Order: sequence, then structure tokens, then C-alpha cells
Amino acid sequence: MIDISSAISAINWTREPQGLYDPIAYTLASGGKRLRPTLALIAAGLYGKEEKALPAALALEIFHNFTLLHDDVMDQAPIRRGRETVHVKWDDNTAILSGDQMLIEAYKQLEGIDAVHLPHVLHLFSKMGTEICEGQQYDMEFETREDVSIDEYIEMIRLKTSVLLGAALEIGAYIADAPSADMEALEVFGTNLGLAFQIQDDILDVYGDEATFGKSIGGDILQNKKSLALLMALKHANADQLARLQGWLHSTDYVPQEKIAAVTAIYNEIGVRELCEAEQNRYTRIAIESLNRMSADAAPLMKLAEKLNNRAN
Amino acid sequence: MIDISSAISAINWTREPQGLYDPIAYTLASGGKRLRPTLALIAAGLYGKEEKALPAALALEIFHNFTLLHDDVMDQAPIRRGRETVHVKWDDNTAILSGDQMLIEAYKQLEGIDAVHLPHVLHLFSKMGTEICEGQQYDMEFETREDVSIDEYIEMIRLKTSVLLGAALEIGAYIADAPSADMEALEVFGTNLGLAFQIQDDILDVYGDEATFGKSIGGDILQNKKSLALLMALKHANADQLARLQGWLHSTDYVPQEKIAAVTAIYNEIGVRELCEAEQNRYTRIAIESLNRMSADAAPLMKLAEKLNNRAN
Repeated sequence: MIDISSAISAINWTREPQGLYDPIAYTLASGGKRLRPTLALIAAGLYGKEEKALPAALALEIFHNFTLLHDDVMDQAPIRRGRETVHVKWDDNTAILSGDQMLIEAYKQLEGIDAVHLPHVLHLFSKMGTEICEGQQYDMEFETREDVSIDEYIEMIRLKTSVLLGAALEIGAYIADAPSADMEALEVFGTNLGLAFQIQDDILDVYGDEATFGKSIGGDILQNKKSLALLMALKHANADQLARLQGWLHSTDYVPQEKIAAVTAIYNEIGVRELCEAEQNRYTRIAIESLNRMSADAAPLMKLAEKLNNRAN
Repeated sequence: MIDISSAISAINWTREPQGLYDPIAYTLASGGKRLRPTLALIAAGLYGKEEKALPAALALEIFHNFTLLHDDVMDQAPIRRGRETVHVKWDDNTAILSGDQMLIEAYKQLEGIDAVHLPHVLHLFSKMGTEICEGQQYDMEFETREDVSIDEYIEMIRLKTSVLLGAALEIGAYIADAPSADMEALEVFGTNLGLAFQIQDDILDVYGDEATFGKSIGGDILQNKKSLALLMALKHANADQLARLQGWLHSTDYVPQEKIAAVTAIYNEIGVRELCEAEQNRYTRIAIESLNRMSADAAPLMKLAEKLNNRAN
């Protein structure tokens, strides 16, 4: 079994100009779950060709970290995985340019794919990249909209998060010459796993443990982010709860920790955590059921899905 | 002969979310010289296969415009090709994200290349992209350095500008199955044409006509940009001229138009324009001489080089 973290660490970023490459090395060294490359390797491994998926796995992880780097500039997020973000440790321009270079580095990794599979992988990779940018654009547009529906939210996180997990599985399976029925099942698995994964992120942003989660708790609340938690709260609040919630959403002068505590208390009254967890579990179930339709033995993916569903970070 | 401007206009950017695609359409509709795609098409056309280079030509133009979009954010430049830059007309986040999407769109265009040529074109394209990012990084680092040499400057503009022209020619010729000796000659042509081109940009930034040039005149002077003009001035100034120049370089409180006029006057005393033009002409000559070594008839490139050498924008 390929150790993906070692494979990522083995990429040499000691190149000139250091000012361009140091932030890339810093970002990739910060760890994370390595979920996307792992999915690609597992998918190819189901057909006995794990090592053929390594270039794509590296491309996916570099791409994912590129999106984090640029998203953190756009959100002006201070912390990622328990460390200063690149735009804080360096500056915005460094984060923009090193991020651009990471995107190119992701494509460079695809050069390791054999010529037979390259055209379709290139197509899947760029399609994925486009959908992720579209998802990020919707996410930013939601910030200034008051009428975001839960359906719109789900479509946004499908684009921003699920598509990358789905592409990781599809590319891994395609490189390993999987039957097309399996690739379809993997796509359904990836999409629904991604939705469950992002919803859990929204839950952890309110109810997680800061040290384990690696980000500040309550960040979504402070930003009035249209997370599933907020959308569920707005949908299920009674008149009194809604009035208090709107009060906090429109307040401009407050002590951050007080706002976090007050909004969390309203969420607790409404039962937001349970409402979100029900959605998370529903998507996880659809994901796992889809694996049962596969010709290959999908036990490694089953195990991963269950582990993710109980994660704390 | 393919009309590259029409081919670029024919790309449909009416897609959702508009907030992501409108800035891309706006950027590509702003015209410009279409130099890079033209070079790719001419290079392939020398071997009778112009139309085979169209996907790469589009990729190169989209890539080039992506770099302008992000560079304008990093430089906080207000005007490009006589119009508001994207980060001014929209905002920084839009410019970052739409730029990211443009980079992906550039790679998407490469899907139109036949499978035989795709792997090497993908390699050349990413190599070019990397070198351009490295050039931009050096350019930014030079801003805070006092000891930039002319050699370092030339290496920076080679990366930031020449490499893209060289890659356009090389990719166009490669797709058209050109002999490798021709590809080497084209590379020398592209590199030197690019150096001449960028040096002329530096000259036009001081001595150009604002309406024709499409950018504010004197922008480099206001930013203390280490252009060839400034480096030549620092190198050839006498003690008195140097003292006056340093005075303006370190002044923080000035009327912009006065600084531009005063620094231009010092440049005139030193003869900076002539010093820079001599370099521009030298590189143009090397470029043109390289064409004489080719087996294909390079007349269209000769004509283009001469036209560029006398441009006003």
C-alpha cells in the first residue's frame, strides 16, 4: 500500500525562487487528511492497480491545497490546520502567486499518466477544477444573499466539495480500467460522501473541539456564513427564535465570543445539530448503499466512509 | 488564415454563475495584440498545419490573459488596455477566482489537441506556466531590492515574457511536426523577440502615448519599478544625476506628475531612451538572424518582428 503522505513529502520544493516555492512546501507539509489522494489510490487499488494512480493522487492533493490557499485569501482566514495561513505568514500576493503555481504543479503531475489514459484524465481533472471554482463563486455570492435555500446550499457544496471526491474516485478507477458500472457507483458514492463530509464540517464549526478541528470554532457564526446549520435554524426557528437569530445576524457591534455563545444557544433550542446530523447520516447511507452495487469488493471504501462519519476534525 | 480574434470571440462565456464567467469574457474581449496565439498559428502555418494549432493558440491567449488578471491584482493596477482592471470593476476576490478559472480554461483548450501530441504539449505548457510564475515572483522581489543587476533583470523578463512567446512558437511548430532544428531556431527567435518586446514596453511606459499605449504613462516611475530604464539610468548617471534620481526614489511625499516629469528629465539627460533602444534593437537582430537558419520560409515571422519593433502600444 502506497504511503501517500510520504509520497507528498518526497516532492522536492527546494527550487528558486524560494519565495515562490516555500509557501507551497509549507502548505503541503501542513498535513490534513489526504482524503482525495487516498480515494484515488483506493479506487485504483480495487482493481489491483494502485500505483498507476499515484500521479493523479498527487495532482488531486496539490489541487485541493491550491484551492485552500486561494480560499483563505478570499475569506481572509487566519488559521488553517492549526497554523497561520499563507497570506498571513507571507502576504496576499504570495498566496495568490504560489497558489497559481500549485495549480500548474497539479497539472504537471498528470504528465506521469500513461498516454492512453491521459486525454480523459485531463478532461476529468479540468471539469472538476471548473466545478470547484463555480462552487466557490456561489459560496461567495451567498454571503450577500438573504434567501439562500437548502437546495441551493446542497448544490453549492456538491460543486465545492463533492466533485473533488467524486473525481478522485472516478480518475483512480478509470486509470485502473474499472468497468463503467463501477465508475458510476463510485461517482454516486463520492458525491454523497462529499455532501456528508461538508455537512459534518458545518457541524464541527459550531460543535467541534478547537484543538482537534484545527480551525477556530464559531468562525461560520461570526461571518454569518450560510452553513447548513444557519439555514436549518432559519427554517425551523419559531417566531421568537427567529427574531433573536436575526438580531445577531444584523448586529454589527458585539463581542465575538458572546455572539458565538448566543447563536449556539439558539441552535441548541431549535435542535440544529440533530437536524444536520440527520442529513449527514442520510447522505452517508446513500453513499454506502451505492458501494453494494459494485462488482469489485468495496470494503476499503466502506471502512473509510464509516471512519469519516465519526471524525472529530 | 485563421482569424484568431474571431476564434476567441466565438468562445461562449454565457454560463452560470455569471459572476465567475463575466470577468473572463470582459478580459478576453478587451483585445490586445493576440501576439501569442498568432505566433503559435504562424509557426504551425510554416509547415502547412495552421488549423491544428488552434486549440493551443486559444490556450496560450487565455493563459496570457489569466496572468494579466492576477498580475493586476498583485500590482493593484487600475487600467489595462484602456479599461478598468477586473479587480477595480469587480473586486480582488473576483479577480482571483475568475483568474483561477481562466487558468483551468486554458488547460481545457488543450483537450482539442490530438492524442499523439498532447503529452509533450501538456509538458511544454506547464513548464512555460511555471517559468512565468517564477518570473513574476522575481519581479515582485525586485521591488524591495536596491541591487538588481541588468543581468538579473534580463533573466526576470526572459521568464516573465519571453518564455511565453517561445512556447507559443515551439508548441505551434511541434504540433505541425516541424524538424527539431527549426524548433530550436524558433526558440531563440521567441526568446529574443520577447526580450525586445518587454524592453520596448519599458520604453513606452516612459515615452509612450497614453491613449495608444492603453496604460498610464509613468506608472513604472511612480512605483520605482526596476525597469530597464531605471537600471540603465542608475548605471550611467553621473554623481549629480544619481543624487537627484535617488532623491526621487526615496521621496514619499510628492505630486505624481512632478515625479514623472522630473525622473523623465533625468532619463533624458542620461540618454536612457537611446540606451534601452540599443538593447531592444540588439535582441530584435538576434531574433531575426535566428530565422535565417530555418529550413521553412520564415517570412511571416520576419514581418511580425519588424512590425513589433516599431509598435506604439
